[in-house]
Amino acid sequence: MERRPVTARSSSESVRGLPEATVARLPVYLRALTALAETDVRTCSSEQLAVAAGVGSAKLRKDLSYLGSYGTRGVGYDVAHLRYQIAREMGVTQDWAVVIVGIGNLGHALASYSGFRSRGFRTVALLDADRRRHGEEVAGLTVRPFDELDAIAREHAVSIGVIATPAAAAQDVADALVGAGVSSILNFAPTVLSVPDTVDVRKVDLSIELQILAYHEQRKAQL
Amino acid sequence: MERRPVTARSSSESVRGLPEATVARLPVYLRALTALAETDVRTCSSEQLAVAAGVGSAKLRKDLSYLGSYGTRGVGYDVAHLRYQIAREMGVTQDWAVVIVGIGNLGHALASYSGFRSRGFRTVALLDADRRRHGEEVAGLTVRPFDELDAIAREHAVSIGVIATPAAAAQDVADALVGAGVSSILNFAPTVLSVPDTVDVRKVDLSIELQILAYHEQRKAQL
Repeated sequence: MERRPVTARSSSESVRGLPEATVARLPVYLRALTALAETDVRTCSSEQLAVAAGVGSAKLRKDLSYLGSYGTRGVGYDVAHLRYQIAREMGVTQDWAVVIVGIGNLGHALASYSGFRSRGFRTVALLDADRRRHGEEVAGLTVRPFDELDAIAREHAVSIGVIATPAAAAQDVADALVGAGVSSILNFAPTVLSVPDTVDVRKVDLSIELQILAYHEQRKAQL
Repeated sequence: MERRPVTARSSSESVRGLPEATVARLPVYLRALTALAETDVRTCSSEQLAVAAGVGSAKLRKDLSYLGSYGTRGVGYDVAHLRYQIAREMGVTQDWAVVIVGIGNLGHALASYSGFRSRGFRTVALLDADRRRHGEEVAGLTVRPFDELDAIAREHAVSIGVIATPAAAAQDVADALVGAGVSSILNFAPTVLSVPDTVDVRKVDLSIELQILAYHEQRKAQL
């Protein structure tokens, strides 16, 4: 199988799909719409939704037009319907089985993260290679040995693996995930992973966000 | 492909600065160059660097051209020099004082995250409103009461605040950070923050990355 390095925003030359930047913004609209629905707002203008989501309203209208959603003149968007349209487009109306590998501080935080379950992501197993962690209870799950991955992936039809290990272990974990049939990987380890073309990888590097802030800090200091 | 900061007041309209998408990729190049330097590679082609960073080589050359870096024909880029150029442009050659607010699981993980210190980010304080956490030692620092923020920010000239609290507390924490003179915020709480124009906010939402993976999973299933 051909391998290529994948990072944050690669893997995604959308063939007949949405532009990658739109895909990245739809969850933000979804969150804003959920917040509006929770305060009993039934319809909203594109400007209102744009402010709630923190994007420009022209960009928002363009994004939603890809879904065939244009709102009603003078009324705006129906909040419940637009939520459903976006959730369906993103595939989060269905249930996704997730395994988290590496149950250190970050793995603990991810296992306890309420934002996953509320959006259709069901963590079915916490795995760690360190036997001292096995048996520990985290967020209602028991930490299990990493070599149970194959059996767990088969049993639960796991499609998404989260890597929260140190960098040195990440490629081996990725290989094992791919071998177990997992086709999407969220990588928190500070390293670039090689995976087959059929596997999607998203990378979260916490220090990159800080570096982007540093860039702006420095510019502010120069003004 | 471009990922913009998703905040109510994103200050990303770069006036005379680099394009925001380039700013987001420079730390990725910096990491790739650091990995090359660690394996004693002295020069590299744009293709080599592009593969290591996981981006297209045309995009890489365009990005580096903004820094006035074009490499030498037939030789490529000098790894050490390019590292320095990027680090200087990003402002990570200097030292940035950081406070982390909210020392739950995520705050623990962030406090222990080695990737911050190695890139010039110095965590000077861990703050939590919960007095049961005060006095706990995490990664060599003692958790302190949130109301010491002003004094700490003054003493250490803190410029970056990291919010790792629940969503309900995040806006109050952001207001306090701004009041204490902190002008950049990295927000992990699942909420959109309102801050003055002079403050930069970057938002990390872990579930958004998972939703983007779900979109691709769904598309793969449909093919």
